[in-house]
Amino acid sequence: MKALDDDYISLAHGNGGRYMRELIDAIFAHHLDNPHLDTRADAAGLLLASPDVMVTTDGFTVKPLEFPGGSIGSLAVHGTVNDLAVAGAVPAWLTVNAFIEEGLEVALLDRLVAALGAAAREAGVAVVAGDTKVVQRGEGGGLYLATTGIGLRRPGLDLGLDRIRAGDRLLVSGPVGDHGIAVMLAREQFGLRGDLHSDSASVLPLADAATSVPGLRFMRDPTRGGLATVCHDIAAATAREVRLDAAAVPIRESVQSVCDMLGYDPLYLACEGRVVAVVADDAAAALLAAWRALPSGADSAIIGRVTQGPARVVLRTELGGERLLDELEDDPLPRIC
Amino acid sequence: MKALDDDYISLAHGNGGRYMRELIDAIFAHHLDNPHLDTRADAAGLLLASPDVMVTTDGFTVKPLEFPGGSIGSLAVHGTVNDLAVAGAVPAWLTVNAFIEEGLEVALLDRLVAALGAAAREAGVAVVAGDTKVVQRGEGGGLYLATTGIGLRRPGLDLGLDRIRAGDRLLVSGPVGDHGIAVMLAREQFGLRGDLHSDSASVLPLADAATSVPGLRFMRDPTRGGLATVCHDIAAATAREVRLDAAAVPIRESVQSVCDMLGYDPLYLACEGRVVAVVADDAAAALLAAWRALPSGADSAIIGRVTQGPARVVLRTELGGERLLDELEDDPLPRIC
Repeated sequence: MKALDDDYISLAHGNGGRYMRELIDAIFAHHLDNPHLDTRADAAGLLLASPDVMVTTDGFTVKPLEFPGGSIGSLAVHGTVNDLAVAGAVPAWLTVNAFIEEGLEVALLDRLVAALGAAAREAGVAVVAGDTKVVQRGEGGGLYLATTGIGLRRPGLDLGLDRIRAGDRLLVSGPVGDHGIAVMLAREQFGLRGDLHSDSASVLPLADAATSVPGLRFMRDPTRGGLATVCHDIAAATAREVRLDAAAVPIRESVQSVCDMLGYDPLYLACEGRVVAVVADDAAAALLAAWRALPSGADSAIIGRVTQGPARVVLRTELGGERLLDELEDDPLPRIC
Repeated sequence: MKALDDDYISLAHGNGGRYMRELIDAIFAHHLDNPHLDTRADAAGLLLASPDVMVTTDGFTVKPLEFPGGSIGSLAVHGTVNDLAVAGAVPAWLTVNAFIEEGLEVALLDRLVAALGAAAREAGVAVVAGDTKVVQRGEGGGLYLATTGIGLRRPGLDLGLDRIRAGDRLLVSGPVGDHGIAVMLAREQFGLRGDLHSDSASVLPLADAATSVPGLRFMRDPTRGGLATVCHDIAAATAREVRLDAAAVPIRESVQSVCDMLGYDPLYLACEGRVVAVVADDAAAALLAAWRALPSGADSAIIGRVTQGPARVVLRTELGGERLLDELEDDPLPRIC
């Protein structure tokens, strides 16, 4: 019995959408399943001396290694710290795995690891373990990183997709698509300039503020697959309809222009410094105010709601019509994280 | 100021010896240093609700992906579990990062992840988090894995290089060099047969037995760089002389033959299922007996001692002479773990 429909791994299996989910279910979840493994959660709670220890892990293959607003070094910290933060945990420790390709310029590696260190210090996490491997020229991508983060869940928090109810509201903490576009432009060297840079940052302050708001149900960072994919995750898990208001979703003009020019939809592009939150209807205003009080949340907005109805994502367009937002099939931009 | 003597990363920076240590010190430790980070330890103790939580991480780039006695899948569990075991911890949780190259045969990936799952179950560890990334053909090595292990230190244990005293004895739990040779033969396809297979296995039973012996000072698993490198670590950390008895070191005839033919020294070749232990002189016999009672320790031996004297490793040869065992400079066998 074939585990997967395909015989060979294709780039689509890394796209953050349907093909990647199938890969994870058919092979990884299939063989590794145990009561602690939830392949749809951002971080796992471990029963240790303290039941509130959370752990998460992420791999980083972004190309190019440096881009406006960040690098694989800082991204490797932000990505993992953010998964803990949106799970309601305070990140404390990090492990780092580096896969270095023969021929990589040492000065570049030094910059990248310096960036990693700086991001870790800024986020208040300590790197406690690491490993480096060197692979032959032609068998690596310059540098790949994997980081595992360990943190402590804030006491009394109860967040999860299962807490979401019809009537709840969706918020996003800032403009979407910045990271995906910034990396793509740096890679393709279209020669486009402007204020296009990644939003890569620790979302700890945003998560912090959100967890102080009663009525917070769930948070997720919209990375691979973007905002639309988070909405799909919510719809699928709650078996409810998620309704998005296109006019309310913050998108930078510069990002929208590039997307229009090149045929990308910013709703599917990765962010690396944003939070999508689901909150009780009567708490939405409070969360909005809390986020807007933060520098990183200045452009926060209430962008939609969860309603009764079939599990799907409906976008109310700027013209007042409605269209279905499909689940991501083919990633328009590989290797952005 | 150049961080490292070299401008470009070479394969030597991944060899487990001097060049790798320089890379780690000059770049990784330099930028990531904090009170919890000890780049010379197998696992790190974290101060959490329980001060006995240990964590370690390892990357795996072994080529070929499958070899007699194991695969990158089982190795990714054994390598990390063993680092926790020799630190005196009981491994409990694992995170897994996979970097999959486009074009990898799905059936092969399935076998490898199945092997990972089986090894995890056998070692009693649960995979609690994971991530998969797919990279373009030509920018990966089929599959690379990173695993982070978390476990609980056995209470009351106090192991470390700093516990070692002059007069202590060294033991090894079985024949050395099996893994390095098995992988090399599988890779180069010399057409040599026989009983040559990797010793890749969880050393938990061996570590378990050792921690029950009063007078245990220190344990390490002799992976990259082999037994000789562990001896160098001991000599350097204790500023004492480590004396090895060549005649006492267990080495399979088949492994020695291949080494003789191809010019390798089994003392520098990786093992993936062995423990090197340093124990008080009057406890050596007890540890030897405890290990020999286990299937995986049937060929255990007392192989040397720590003495006063300059920090160096001296090998008493089978002919009765003595020679210095140098620190590993150039790894004879890259990509064996």
